[in-house]
Amino acid sequence: MTDLARFSINQMTVKQLSLPELVSACGEFGIGQVGLWREPVQSYGVEATAELIRDAGLTVTTLCRGGFFTAIAPEARASALADNRRAIEEAATLGTDTLVLVSGGLPTGSKDLNGARERIADALTELAPYAEQHGVRLAVEPLHPMYASDRCVVSTLAQALDLAERFPAHQVGVAVDTYHIWWDDQAPAQIARAGAGGRIHTFQLADWVTPLPEGVLNGRGQIGDGAIDMREWRGHVEAAGYTGPIEVELFNDALWARDGREVLAETVERFRALRR
Amino acid sequence: MTDLARFSINQMTVKQLSLPELVSACGEFGIGQVGLWREPVQSYGVEATAELIRDAGLTVTTLCRGGFFTAIAPEARASALADNRRAIEEAATLGTDTLVLVSGGLPTGSKDLNGARERIADALTELAPYAEQHGVRLAVEPLHPMYASDRCVVSTLAQALDLAERFPAHQVGVAVDTYHIWWDDQAPAQIARAGAGGRIHTFQLADWVTPLPEGVLNGRGQIGDGAIDMREWRGHVEAAGYTGPIEVELFNDALWARDGREVLAETVERFRALRR
Repeated sequence: MTDLARFSINQMTVKQLSLPELVSACGEFGIGQVGLWREPVQSYGVEATAELIRDAGLTVTTLCRGGFFTAIAPEARASALADNRRAIEEAATLGTDTLVLVSGGLPTGSKDLNGARERIADALTELAPYAEQHGVRLAVEPLHPMYASDRCVVSTLAQALDLAERFPAHQVGVAVDTYHIWWDDQAPAQIARAGAGGRIHTFQLADWVTPLPEGVLNGRGQIGDGAIDMREWRGHVEAAGYTGPIEVELFNDALWARDGREVLAETVERFRALRR
Repeated sequence: MTDLARFSINQMTVKQLSLPELVSACGEFGIGQVGLWREPVQSYGVEATAELIRDAGLTVTTLCRGGFFTAIAPEARASALADNRRAIEEAATLGTDTLVLVSGGLPTGSKDLNGARERIADALTELAPYAEQHGVRLAVEPLHPMYASDRCVVSTLAQALDLAERFPAHQVGVAVDTYHIWWDDQAPAQIARAGAGGRIHTFQLADWVTPLPEGVLNGRGQIGDGAIDMREWRGHVEAAGYTGPIEVELFNDALWARDGREVLAETVERFRALRR
């Protein structure tokens, strides 16, 4: 096993690279696993991407993302469910077993967090069996509480597990991403809970750096640049029995402005440093 | 009892008003309570502020803020403790019984949240008896998790209570601010815990609006403009037995750019609307 055996590069970290460029760079750097996003995959073509990845001998660790389940209007809900069925189909085509879900924020004008969380459960009830039929597991991702109103009302690992545990683990689990949970003193216990239930469907790394940019979306730090003790979180996840891929997923305007292969090389180096 | 009997305007909401302008406007609008900040009070003079407030018949509900207890270097810790003793003395001079504490973020280069939280406890051990001698209660304020690295490692009401409960309630309690806790499904139970222990030392309102500005400090929304169900949180706090002041504390560049008296009138109107 090489030191990159568990490493997966999420495509968003180096979104300046086209899919063929990313695949080529992975070959060069000895990277065997990638996490993909729907939009760039759709632009390249889902089948074409699957073929590109397969021919290169790469594994797709996750597809990001489904979700956005919190709409109230029936047409909007039906449309979200249809889109998520397509996301499940795309995941199956790409050969990944994990679809990451960003569950959605509060609908315009609503202040009802609990109601929104229940609509997420309703959507999972519809989608979980469909996912299973396609060999895909859903991973509910808690997002940092700063996204609670506009992006994801699931703010903690405990909340994500409360949702996931309504379903069998092979249908619904959680995404553990350091960026979203590092501040939470309850998260280590929740990682143990998730691991005991076989529900850690992906483990992702991003570091916390400040000041946060306007809109707080594209300020995730390179591994090692910020406040998060990555070794400690990796330890929690491994103590919980997780032996799967460790995906680095950064959204960062400064990284995107740089040469993509240089950022990829740096990310590999930072990942390797976690072992030292 | 008028409908503003429990209303308190925090000085930061209308920081474009000088202290005499604020006091005058309070008289005009029928506002009997203000929350003050150390910096503008020091600029005007602590004794002079106390006299101005007293002569106007106003009550000071809180002084913001002490804290920043997380430094590691002995000199920095001694300096923080000395500054907090001054803050306690200032609170006593101003006649308020509550000093709000923003506990501090991670020291530069540190990734140890638990260690930082323990240093906060150490500081409280030094300061709580001193505060009691001055008739002042310390209110540990959990800040939203988006401030965990650079401002306050106490991110939830549960963590704040874990710290406060090491001390008698008349020495250390918590600040409940809707802006910081609204996303947290555990917060209602923690408010009940705080109320049962007599530890709700202040209740503050600010609304959650997006997009967050760069640095995420000055984007607190006017009451009613955002995602937070203020009536619900007021209900939780009152169900927990809290009958004290309700302070509106907004940091908002757009509000600060407007006429201060107009913003104050709007804030009063929004507060009144919570009763309807």
